[in-house]
Amino acid sequence: MNEFSQGAAWIKGQVVPIAEATIGVTDWAVTHSDVTYDVVPVRNGGFFRLGDYLDRFEASISACRMNIGMSQAQISNALQAIVARSGLRHAYCAMVAARGTPLTPGSRDPRDCDNHFYAWCVPYIHVVKPEIANQGVKIWLSEDVRRIPPDSVNPLVKNYHWGDFTAGLFEAKDRGFETVILPDHAGNVTEGPGFNLFSIKGKSAVTPDTSVLHGITRRTALELCREAGFETTERDLPIDELMEADEVFLTSSGGGIIPVSQIGERVFSNGHAGPASIRLRQRYFELMDDPAYRTDVAY
Amino acid sequence: MNEFSQGAAWIKGQVVPIAEATIGVTDWAVTHSDVTYDVVPVRNGGFFRLGDYLDRFEASISACRMNIGMSQAQISNALQAIVARSGLRHAYCAMVAARGTPLTPGSRDPRDCDNHFYAWCVPYIHVVKPEIANQGVKIWLSEDVRRIPPDSVNPLVKNYHWGDFTAGLFEAKDRGFETVILPDHAGNVTEGPGFNLFSIKGKSAVTPDTSVLHGITRRTALELCREAGFETTERDLPIDELMEADEVFLTSSGGGIIPVSQIGERVFSNGHAGPASIRLRQRYFELMDDPAYRTDVAY
Ligand SMILES: Cc1ncc(COP(=O)(O)O)c(C=O)c1O
Ligand SMILES: Cc1ncc(COP(=O)(O)O)c(C=O)c1O
Repeated sequence: MNEFSQGAAWIKGQVVPIAEATIGVTDWAVTHSDVTYDVVPVRNGGFFRLGDYLDRFEASISACRMNIGMSQAQISNALQAIVARSGLRHAYCAMVAARGTPLTPGSRDPRDCDNHFYAWCVPYIHVVKPEIANQGVKIWLSEDVRRIPPDSVNPLVKNYHWGDFTAGLFEAKDRGFETVILPDHAGNVTEGPGFNLFSIKGKSAVTPDTSVLHGITRRTALELCREAGFETTERDLPIDELMEADEVFLTSSGGGIIPVSQIGERVFSNGHAGPASIRLRQRYFELMDDPAYRTDVAY
Repeated sequence: MNEFSQGAAWIKGQVVPIAEATIGVTDWAVTHSDVTYDVVPVRNGGFFRLGDYLDRFEASISACRMNIGMSQAQISNALQAIVARSGLRHAYCAMVAARGTPLTPGSRDPRDCDNHFYAWCVPYIHVVKPEIANQGVKIWLSEDVRRIPPDSVNPLVKNYHWGDFTAGLFEAKDRGFETVILPDHAGNVTEGPGFNLFSIKGKSAVTPDTSVLHGITRRTALELCREAGFETTERDLPIDELMEADEVFLTSSGGGIIPVSQIGERVFSNGHAGPASIRLRQRYFELMDDPAYRTDVAY
């Protein structure tokens, strides 16, 4: 086990062990959570849909009006360098654009900061442990917390504003549930800490469209649903409708397609993973190994 | 100029120059903005209302269900140590409680993390430059952004979720305004990046009560308003009522009581700082030098 085996980071052009990867405590990325990021999964030594993740990251940076002075090719090289250095075949690989600190001391102007880029990778993270995901996960629909609305913080820009999720996670864990999904202020369901959500009813698959990140795994799941003969719709999903679904699953770069067996008191598929969700989960992992979607890591 | 003159930090029991004060990029304080903090001002070599700031910090930590393993006396000693080491007579002194990382690798449970404390100080920060504050500041009431609602993130727990403020600041700065205040979703005004807000009409002073941090400067301003013969009320403040005020001022540990001369197109006090706001501003600075409210730094 070398010092990079727990992960590696790219900081100011240097590749360092994850334990040495730090950011200044006065950086607005910390003090204002003024930061956007993305996470691309690595499976069996290859990045999955790397171009799609890089495109989303670029769109987020521009929505934040940051300039990190790195092309997609340079970002991609940084990601290659850290995963190769770590030797990890299955990795969670994060790229981050940070506001930095004001160029003029004392300035409070976000236009006046030294934006910067860093990246890091660690062994693959599962938002739900695979043993549990395979059986179907029990999740909690928060009673106390509402998802931060889009006119407060834009959910399309992948961000670290997880206060609502953290409060929801405490609520869920205290009640013995694995994770949480949050409603919006109008009685629709949105998303959870690290994942989107789908409901399946008959031959129809629905996933929320507003108040949520447009996950890359959500996109893959939409494609796989259509491949499996489902009609897909991206629209508001009322809680009542969710509770009437045949099957529910979560989607995340941290675990793919994750069948749900229970939401609060409501049990789905007799407390097991639903058959359609199981097939979609398998297809997702197959797709991750498909050369058409892979960028090999040059270890 | 020594290496501590730009600030100092207390990290894991060590006092280091601010340039060396960092936090790990995988700490949930960064990746989930799962952190609470407080900021006590130092003026003329003394902390102002230190006990009140420490009490609020303690309440925030407990609301976040963190345990940093430090008593108020130990925190106070850490703050003393960094301000003394920096030699700064006027300082912005931050204390931070961070979630840390999971004790069990791969855990996604916020109850399972190594919470930790750090602190740092830098030369005093003004949310509005004093030259501008003395004349009255021009602020923008956001048209596009709403304050994160209390059922998404609890505003009483001082936090780094500034995405709404940052978006509002861009809106304000692009239009030539100094800073921004955000409405809530019901048409009331809330607060801005680093400050609360008061409206004065006749002998009545009103400040918002929900959807805002209960600022220590807000508390001081309430006391000073009563001292000056105003009747004070903490309640929802509709935008229409704000625009009818005789005077408006902001309150912040980063600059005290700050008169407002303009909100968007609406000009107050003929475009100057209002007379009551000016007197309250002076009284605030007098109070900061009052031994009853001071804790001297042992340089
Ligand atoms: C809030 C939120 N929603 C959804 C997702 C899923 O997005 P993706 O499939 O791109 O991982 C994530 C991923 O971290 C997330 O943080
Ligand atoms: C969101 C917010 N509101 C209000 C305030 C003012 O609080 P205080 O007077 O305690 O500095 C702050 C201070 O940073 C703040 O961040």
